[in-house]
Amino acid sequence: MRRKCMKSENCPVARTLDLVGEWWTLLILRDALTGLKRFSEFQQSLGMAKNILTTRLRKLVEHGILVVRPASDGSAYYEYALTDKGRSLATVVDALRAWGQSHLSGDGTSTCQDLSPVGRPSRRKARIPGL
Amino acid sequence: MRRKCMKSENCPVARTLDLVGEWWTLLILRDALTGLKRFSEFQQSLGMAKNILTTRLRKLVEHGILVVRPASDGSAYYEYALTDKGRSLATVVDALRAWGQSHLSGDGTSTCQDLSPVGRPSRRKARIPGL
Repeated sequence: MRRKCMKSENCPVARTLDLVGEWWTLLILRDALTGLKRFSEFQQSLGMAKNILTTRLRKLVEHGILVVRPASDGSAYYEYALTDKGRSLATVVDALRAWGQSHLSGDGTSTCQDLSPVGRPSRRKARIPGL
Repeated sequence: MRRKCMKSENCPVARTLDLVGEWWTLLILRDALTGLKRFSEFQQSLGMAKNILTTRLRKLVEHGILVVRPASDGSAYYEYALTDKGRSLATVVDALRAWGQSHLSGDGTSTCQDLSPVGRPSRRKARIPGL
């Protein structure tokens, strides 16, 4: 869908949303902020299609939020590391987290710090009435 | 696109994004936080299709972020007012704004507080390389 917003060009909220205001992108950032670095780690955590993950990561690299570098463990792999610009998005992710913890039901056990690559694949249960 | 995230059910970031993590929804909240209340005001500010605006507003009402009430000016119209739950999303919008102001280029003149209903319709210029 084409997005048109009369205030977009000058509004820092809209400009930020243009760059990171997408469900998957913000979850990638959430995971990067908790320490995930490898493509396979993001893919396993999020369960998203590889081509979509590739596109999202590429966009974040192009805009200086992530950098690609040789893996820090000396292996032949590459990893995605947050830049200072990317790390500063923690304020956005933290605000989303705090609001969710205060206002949305859940078991309250997850702080999104679980770096275990083993997740529980599950289809999303919630259905928004009227949508 | 079906969204699947292994951490969604318990992660407050993902749950918050399920509810408000959509480009238009966050811009509606931005406008509501700056004082817009009427359907026509949102429509004029954002330039979005009425059916999409209707769907987004309905979702926000269903989830207790907005309430529909008779217009405060005594006219026959209705208006959308933020609940306390909705107002507390200011932390998210403020974080997006602060990051945009710090890290994204712009003329710096807009603080998204401009409530003028007269905007400058414009197609978005920016094209993300590779997308």
